[in-house]
Amino acid sequence: MEQTNDFSEKAKLIRKCCLISTTEAASGHPTSCLSAADITTVLFDKYFTYDITSPLNLFNDRFVLSKGHAAPLLYALFAVSGAFPVDELKSLRKFGSILQGHPVPKFKYSEAATGSLGQGLSVGAGLALLAKRENLPYKTYVLTGDGELAEGQIWEAANFASYHNLDNLIALLDINRFAQSGETMFGHHMEQYAKRFESFGFEVAVIDGHNYGEIDRALSDAVNNKTSRPYAIIAKTLKGKGVSFIENKDGWHGKALKKEELEKALKELGNVNDTLKFNLKKPSQQKAAVITATIEKANNDFDKMKEYATREVFGDVLVSTGKANKSIYALDADVKNSTFTEKFTKEIPERFVECFIAEQNMVSVAAGLSRLDKIPVVATFAAFLTRAADQIRMARVSEANIKFVGSHVGVSIGEDGPSQMGLEDIALFGALPHSVVLQPCDAVSTAKLVPEMIAHKGITYMRTLRPKTKIVYGNDEDFRIGGCGILRQSKEDVLTIAATGITVFEALKAADELKKENISVGVIDCYSIKPLDRKTIVQRVRETKKQMLVTVEDHFEHGGLGDFAEDALEGTGCTVVKMAVEKISQSGTMEELLKDAGIDFTSIIARVKSLTKIFTGAYHQN
Amino acid sequence: MEQTNDFSEKAKLIRKCCLISTTEAASGHPTSCLSAADITTVLFDKYFTYDITSPLNLFNDRFVLSKGHAAPLLYALFAVSGAFPVDELKSLRKFGSILQGHPVPKFKYSEAATGSLGQGLSVGAGLALLAKRENLPYKTYVLTGDGELAEGQIWEAANFASYHNLDNLIALLDINRFAQSGETMFGHHMEQYAKRFESFGFEVAVIDGHNYGEIDRALSDAVNNKTSRPYAIIAKTLKGKGVSFIENKDGWHGKALKKEELEKALKELGNVNDTLKFNLKKPSQQKAAVITATIEKANNDFDKMKEYATREVFGDVLVSTGKANKSIYALDADVKNSTFTEKFTKEIPERFVECFIAEQNMVSVAAGLSRLDKIPVVATFAAFLTRAADQIRMARVSEANIKFVGSHVGVSIGEDGPSQMGLEDIALFGALPHSVVLQPCDAVSTAKLVPEMIAHKGITYMRTLRPKTKIVYGNDEDFRIGGCGILRQSKEDVLTIAATGITVFEALKAADELKKENISVGVIDCYSIKPLDRKTIVQRVRETKKQMLVTVEDHFEHGGLGDFAEDALEGTGCTVVKMAVEKISQSGTMEELLKDAGIDFTSIIARVKSLTKIFTGAYHQN
Repeated sequence: MEQTNDFSEKAKLIRKCCLISTTEAASGHPTSCLSAADITTVLFDKYFTYDITSPLNLFNDRFVLSKGHAAPLLYALFAVSGAFPVDELKSLRKFGSILQGHPVPKFKYSEAATGSLGQGLSVGAGLALLAKRENLPYKTYVLTGDGELAEGQIWEAANFASYHNLDNLIALLDINRFAQSGETMFGHHMEQYAKRFESFGFEVAVIDGHNYGEIDRALSDAVNNKTSRPYAIIAKTLKGKGVSFIENKDGWHGKALKKEELEKALKELGNVNDTLKFNLKKPSQQKAAVITATIEKANNDFDKMKEYATREVFGDVLVSTGKANKSIYALDADVKNSTFTEKFTKEIPERFVECFIAEQNMVSVAAGLSRLDKIPVVATFAAFLTRAADQIRMARVSEANIKFVGSHVGVSIGEDGPSQMGLEDIALFGALPHSVVLQPCDAVSTAKLVPEMIAHKGITYMRTLRPKTKIVYGNDEDFRIGGCGILRQSKEDVLTIAATGITVFEALKAADELKKENISVGVIDCYSIKPLDRKTIVQRVRETKKQMLVTVEDHFEHGGLGDFAEDALEGTGCTVVKMAVEKISQSGTMEELLKDAGIDFTSIIARVKSLTKIFTGAYHQN
Repeated sequence: MEQTNDFSEKAKLIRKCCLISTTEAASGHPTSCLSAADITTVLFDKYFTYDITSPLNLFNDRFVLSKGHAAPLLYALFAVSGAFPVDELKSLRKFGSILQGHPVPKFKYSEAATGSLGQGLSVGAGLALLAKRENLPYKTYVLTGDGELAEGQIWEAANFASYHNLDNLIALLDINRFAQSGETMFGHHMEQYAKRFESFGFEVAVIDGHNYGEIDRALSDAVNNKTSRPYAIIAKTLKGKGVSFIENKDGWHGKALKKEELEKALKELGNVNDTLKFNLKKPSQQKAAVITATIEKANNDFDKMKEYATREVFGDVLVSTGKANKSIYALDADVKNSTFTEKFTKEIPERFVECFIAEQNMVSVAAGLSRLDKIPVVATFAAFLTRAADQIRMARVSEANIKFVGSHVGVSIGEDGPSQMGLEDIALFGALPHSVVLQPCDAVSTAKLVPEMIAHKGITYMRTLRPKTKIVYGNDEDFRIGGCGILRQSKEDVLTIAATGITVFEALKAADELKKENISVGVIDCYSIKPLDRKTIVQRVRETKKQMLVTVEDHFEHGGLGDFAEDALEGTGCTVVKMAVEKISQSGTMEELLKDAGIDFTSIIARVKSLTKIFTGAYHQN
């Protein structure tokens, strides 16, 4: 009883914090906080093990707020845990505050940026998997709303968690019946949630989320889970619980109380002891997460006479880099024999994560791994990375350190057709602030750039090619993020062609053919698409007669290399001519499709001739 | 017994077709076709109701191939249905053939482009919902693989189907145990699938997918489904069934037989009667899908003295347009009170589809509606449309006619913070070939552009604004896709500012302030971002002293208006200066965040002064 009373008083304080901070901000989601105040109070006061001075301590329990709009609750929980003075909660949603509308990394106790719903269970699954793989004792708790359980990613995460026997993962489902615009699909039909999570392999407890005894018992059972299954505590709650005029009422989502309403609400709550603190348990050990070693450069020797698929070289170098650095994890979505992470699976199975065909969960699991300083390398077809565009966006907001590798880019994949072609991936990754986008065209540059990519902190993306390609570089050449390779250069150049990936070979072929007709063009390999090597490119273009750069890429016209090149040359007086894919492609051979898209060597030759005003009847003028 | 033998012979023919066509193509997924040959043979021969001369007949049953890599099976089924000569199957995967590696609209019997897995059940749910809403008698069959059941979208679709009582939807699950790179999560543990689909509200039958009696019984039960639940026939099958050396063997995904292997396989199949045809049932009526009426222009009168949120004006005009045209459906993902499709819900509930928080399913449901000439208008926060980037990509490959509306764009949303800000949406939609991207800044242009958007065939995207904005246009002005509005123009202009959406008002304020200092700048409202009004913009910029265009947008720097403007001015000798969001934003007021992002009026003033070399100490030079 003593304990129960204590919970009640502390939950009151949490409620007060959430109400005051949102009213102060004049926006936010107080009712979504109140429904979960009781269950989180019991968690923090009795079960949560956490060194408040060291959020990245590997022995801390983890708390993921999947329902990111309940951020004021998260902030209140950590304030009452002693992380910072309760009074600071009044800076909620103010410019410059660490207490933003939805959690971001500035709030260092947040495991991930959330606010796009349905992602937290995957982040938690990543953290729980890490504890399993690295023999760490922590539990991972994920608080979700009920509206977000409609997101498919939740079920990807649920399958993933039970498949990987994540018995250290505890989902707290706050079933408060109302979503933003009305009742959820299932309202308070608790059995609908229970049977779904049971069928997906969870241990399930359905409780009254405002009954401290039931909460306590369920958390105790979950913490002492003796099965190999993840645990779901499905709590029937009331939105706005504790304040009569907003409790269990529709139309109160995302609305802060007005000053008068707040006064009325606080009167209802009654006396609250503002000095109460949660009894956070101390973890048994102290060891902060840190990346284990530096990244070594690859020293592969490639045979000039052979051809290699860059995707396969990536797979080889990932293994050697992964052996040298134990922070590296590889994740794949059932295409490991295409992306060549298969090699990693075989050699370093303890750090390979099979995610099956569920790309969204894969990316958020990676964000979870990255939180504790692992370096996740996430691979699938480039086209299917778009499946996780929102998770990639949120990983960027989370400042996650993830390496994305997309294979099978562009029309060059051939017969499989447009559904399998990554043609908007540069636009997607390129739009993210400070992201890095690489596309090596041969084995040498791939081998050198994979370690560079892994060593770079932040979101990086590498395109790899399906077909085998020739070697264009010497084994001793250097490559860097922000660099480029000059493959053809002469004082006679009328213009320069900037290519990347497969189109490098088309550009080289075109240059060689044009040479025979005494038309000299430069060729630059833009293996670093973002950042582009502005200085070198501008210099090269300025040295040509036409002061012109022709970009050729196996990507849609908008958002690709051409746009980065236009940026680079803007204001220099030089001209950019973009050659890119401008329609939906089809099945065919690589050669047919490159030509059909107007980015093969014959198209380049025709364009160059047209641009240099040397007309022949043989080519179509564009 | 007679019937059973018949199935067997026809299934043999289907198998032969799949084997021959893939060997002829030297690529493809024959084993994924063979596992589903028996169940689809019984379906087509005994249950499928279809007028082969009119694929868009509203009384046809629908067959969605969710496992798009089994395209050769789809083609064989329709060939043996008499759609085209069996011999044409040999053009599989050839350049120019309608029989591509994965189904696309060129194959007119395909309900959608598939090949990105896990989307077909949603497309089917859209078609089934349409039958319910419009009292059409057809059944919708969806053939899925087992690997793709790991995609969360499947479970979004499952919830959607049972919530909307789609008892006319029949999912055929081909559980052949192997995915691309190994065994699926559940192998042949049929109960794992059964309990999941049961818990999601499906009627379930688990059968041997190679036993014609069991298939027949299950299909009969499904067709005569007396419950209100959707039906799942979960068929235990063998990948490569019917050919001993590939049957039920790992390592045979996506591999065509070599010529010698094919011979051996055909010998195993034995005698096959190539002239067999399925007994397709004739539908009871003939009525082809067609868009019901033209789109009328909106005639709203807005009060110059008032402010309006463009998202709300969109909601109003959607209702009036929707009343005039019964082809229009509105779909929303639980934010209808933010996007203002709520108005449509209230006035035209029979054509509103609540999709709850499941954006992926929403987009593919819309693709299903679009297949039968409905005009789906899909609305949610712009940021959350990225959740469905892959479905949008596939909708484009499907040539679907969908209108996307994203609200809450940019940092201008204020306090909610970066997770809720749509800042890469122009990059995403802009990359798609021939897409249209609009962003009206005031009530008048919104009201005029909504009908234009709906009347335009193809993928269109409209950004709407969260805050209320002033009226800048007269009620009688005209707007068109590919147009722009000239808001400030004089012979004294040193340069022109191109703005869109919220930044139009910042640009106008900047222009007015600059005017006071005798610096005259033009202002163009790029309400049509793609296509951009190249002609007008070039002309305006050429008339300025600096021959310079400054673009200002509430979008990330890459992939937005600035890149389209660079394209437009490329080769003209004019210069583009891009002002856009270059970092992850935060919480704050709209004014604080616009300024913090460097796209508010003070930033514009500073940039213009810097560009025009009129330096003052007061502004930061960039």
